[in-house]
Amino acid sequence: MKKVQPRVPSGFHEFNPAEQIILEQLKNQICRSFESFGFGPVETPAAELKEVILAKGHIDSKQIYTISRLPGEQDLSAALEDLAHSLDEGRLEESLQNLPLKQNPDRHAPDAIGSKLLNHIQELVKRSQTDMALHFDLTMPVARFVTNHKASLVFPFRRYQMQKVWRGERPQDSRFREFYQCDIDVIGRGSLDTLFDAEIPSIIYRTFQQMKIGAFIIRISNTKILEEYLRSAGIQDDRIIKVKSVLDDLEKVGIESTMSKLSEVAGISFDQSRSVIAFLTDDTSSSDEMLEKVKNLKISDRFQKGVEELSEVIRGVRMFGVPEEFFRIDMRIARGLDYYTGTIYETVLVDYPGIGSICSGGRYDDLASHFGDEKFPGVGISIGLTRLFKRLLLAGLIKTKASTVAPVLVTVLDLRCMNQYIRVANDLRMIGINTEMYLKVESLGKQLRYANRKGFQVAIVAGEMELARGVIAVKDLIVGNGIEIPIDVAAETIKKILGAVSDRE
Amino acid sequence: MKKVQPRVPSGFHEFNPAEQIILEQLKNQICRSFESFGFGPVETPAAELKEVILAKGHIDSKQIYTISRLPGEQDLSAALEDLAHSLDEGRLEESLQNLPLKQNPDRHAPDAIGSKLLNHIQELVKRSQTDMALHFDLTMPVARFVTNHKASLVFPFRRYQMQKVWRGERPQDSRFREFYQCDIDVIGRGSLDTLFDAEIPSIIYRTFQQMKIGAFIIRISNTKILEEYLRSAGIQDDRIIKVKSVLDDLEKVGIESTMSKLSEVAGISFDQSRSVIAFLTDDTSSSDEMLEKVKNLKISDRFQKGVEELSEVIRGVRMFGVPEEFFRIDMRIARGLDYYTGTIYETVLVDYPGIGSICSGGRYDDLASHFGDEKFPGVGISIGLTRLFKRLLLAGLIKTKASTVAPVLVTVLDLRCMNQYIRVANDLRMIGINTEMYLKVESLGKQLRYANRKGFQVAIVAGEMELARGVIAVKDLIVGNGIEIPIDVAAETIKKILGAVSDRE
Repeated sequence: MKKVQPRVPSGFHEFNPAEQIILEQLKNQICRSFESFGFGPVETPAAELKEVILAKGHIDSKQIYTISRLPGEQDLSAALEDLAHSLDEGRLEESLQNLPLKQNPDRHAPDAIGSKLLNHIQELVKRSQTDMALHFDLTMPVARFVTNHKASLVFPFRRYQMQKVWRGERPQDSRFREFYQCDIDVIGRGSLDTLFDAEIPSIIYRTFQQMKIGAFIIRISNTKILEEYLRSAGIQDDRIIKVKSVLDDLEKVGIESTMSKLSEVAGISFDQSRSVIAFLTDDTSSSDEMLEKVKNLKISDRFQKGVEELSEVIRGVRMFGVPEEFFRIDMRIARGLDYYTGTIYETVLVDYPGIGSICSGGRYDDLASHFGDEKFPGVGISIGLTRLFKRLLLAGLIKTKASTVAPVLVTVLDLRCMNQYIRVANDLRMIGINTEMYLKVESLGKQLRYANRKGFQVAIVAGEMELARGVIAVKDLIVGNGIEIPIDVAAETIKKILGAVSDRE
Repeated sequence: MKKVQPRVPSGFHEFNPAEQIILEQLKNQICRSFESFGFGPVETPAAELKEVILAKGHIDSKQIYTISRLPGEQDLSAALEDLAHSLDEGRLEESLQNLPLKQNPDRHAPDAIGSKLLNHIQELVKRSQTDMALHFDLTMPVARFVTNHKASLVFPFRRYQMQKVWRGERPQDSRFREFYQCDIDVIGRGSLDTLFDAEIPSIIYRTFQQMKIGAFIIRISNTKILEEYLRSAGIQDDRIIKVKSVLDDLEKVGIESTMSKLSEVAGISFDQSRSVIAFLTDDTSSSDEMLEKVKNLKISDRFQKGVEELSEVIRGVRMFGVPEEFFRIDMRIARGLDYYTGTIYETVLVDYPGIGSICSGGRYDDLASHFGDEKFPGVGISIGLTRLFKRLLLAGLIKTKASTVAPVLVTVLDLRCMNQYIRVANDLRMIGINTEMYLKVESLGKQLRYANRKGFQVAIVAGEMELARGVIAVKDLIVGNGIEIPIDVAAETIKKILGAVSDRE
């Protein structure tokens, strides 16, 4: 039999069992936090129609994966091979004559053979392709979902969505081609109050507080302020998006390098770009001082509007109970994406700035505009979970424990006692304790080695003699000692022992 | 702006918010049940390498979706259009001369133009495709995962996996092209005791008992018995797989129709096929009587082996505590898939036989054989969750409740009192009660209409006057009455009220 190397595609990643256990806990924690604010689950298909995914037009379509049919692909390559052979042997004309073409070329082509050939290939290509592409984020799908189901949804609509997305990144950039995004959005019909923009940082705050990954800061800004400021610095409208993506890299590449890049991309002088950067990277002013500073700049009505929104959001963030040390106005955040129209957020770990933003988002007022005339303004955030999890693991901020979800292993020493082993296991499960049974009679040493390698906390050990006395031994696998307990109260006693084990950790 | 119809691809499905809430609860319940037996989570990429997914060879590759690149697809269609135009205008030769071909044809083709054309197209086709396909089940991925990571895994390896799979089904068959599968498998290295086969029905039993979807029966058989029996009935080896898939449809199409189909596919007489069907569909014998019956048939050593395995499994199933009315030996189950080598299972709802098997699986001894020489025998089951959920909804066995995950809505009547509204909401969240705030000052009527449409259980209502007295009103949205409670004990009091509400339901 021909052997195939069992490996995953380049740019794709899978976690080991111990990591996956922690990742699932993290996913659960995030969902529960979102739900505590009234966000409900939504799941959309992995595939969207190409026309839907491309509706917005100016997204970066280079990274989009489409879906094809394997039999169609196989037919196409076989046909191309066949045609090449026929050509080599000088019987291309004959081969093409015999093709069952759906649609005969009605072109008055000087070269009827070439025309048949192209028609044939076009048909085969079409049959191999589908009308679908894999979603590359969860923002486009939610815009589609909301306009799709607007008649039955109740607005403002709060949903969370935790799904994989796919992007054809170059693997040498060490980015994932498949990763989880966890998004929340509140979407209004017609309008959506700024209070919703102010609630979001309180959700970010509660969610990351519970994760216990150290100090973090939610940076808040407003895209109207940034855009109008750039405009007032002499930057043309058609360069703003490029300028924003240069600013997004500011922390990665440093101030000096950003200045030269900015003056080049923005078409402004180096001195002008120096003053732009100085304004954006003001680290010394408090949020209130920043607000005062921008209030006094009379740049434009839209700038003024942005300043008012930002003041309102900051007032609201305080009201929603986010402590001062967890947020600040930060003008350097740009969110290169062109769909934000107001408030924007980023969140960074104070002690691990290199990890970058762990949670970003903002307000968008016309995301669904390519699906209809009605306005569905929304505000939301996204956590790039796979990347975040990887980095928290690397930084030691999240640690794996065991590669089993069960704390208890019931060893099996004597097949004649199976009924009692099974009884203990089922009693434990009934009171919510995950329990695995070692379903093979082997030496106790071998069973305990298995238990230790997988990271069980306790092992239940009992032979015919113990069971005859109505007792079992509970072996604490971390400390190494063991006690005998009556089988009748085994489950409750083990529950107490596990409580003590986890307190000790 | 050109408007695009916001819809999902044909054959794909998404649930409304109320349905999705119940589906997530169901998913959670299933995972917790699997974990209680020591199965841990594993997640593999949605994409596998084509060579990996096709390694087994004789799977039905017609349904497989592959992954392509959008820019490559766009380049290919543009090029084919261009070539057709050049051809029309008689300048194909010239166009092809100017192509930047990676690999110039070195064939001594009589038609150099045709050769260039084909080379060009082959290059473009290659650039549009990738080496990846979407997984169509979770069995092939776990076989790949286990051989991939065998050095670090601890065997026997227990994992559950709950992921979407994709199949290019024809939509007219009203099947889903994307659906969730929930699988558990225990995989051994080298060998795996029959006790593991016996544990599986106890997991099925506990999992579906907790779901409260009515009576069900786990049907158990052994593929060795079926295959050897068919062989003894004169059916050739190369027809067995086709015969099994005819038998899989037995309950759908009826006995008469199966008999004719069987004699046709199996190459046996109608009378022979009648006696085969009679043996398989014996409804009157108990499991023990069936075992006795097959024990007395001396068909072959492999048949004997199957009978021994089946007796052992039935003995184990009783030991693991599955009540008699929840399982039976049933020879009609065939599991058309060719990878099962021993025990096979199906599970049907007693009162809804039309729903078909809600959970199926079995033992496979050489699933990973195309990845290496080492044996990884396994036993497992799969739940087709999306289809099951749809059918349970239709049958009324699962009911949706609210389209909110939060039981409590805090209404907002006066912006000056926001601090107190927020305090009540946060207090509730702290004790685990999901709480949404209505973040816009609107008439109470409008806010309560929103609460009723979404299905909140209680609404908190308080104006300046109430708050000045230190009280809030809790409105029971199901009964319609309301009570005033002190704001200081609001959270705990509301928790009690919610307890009473859910008891009443």
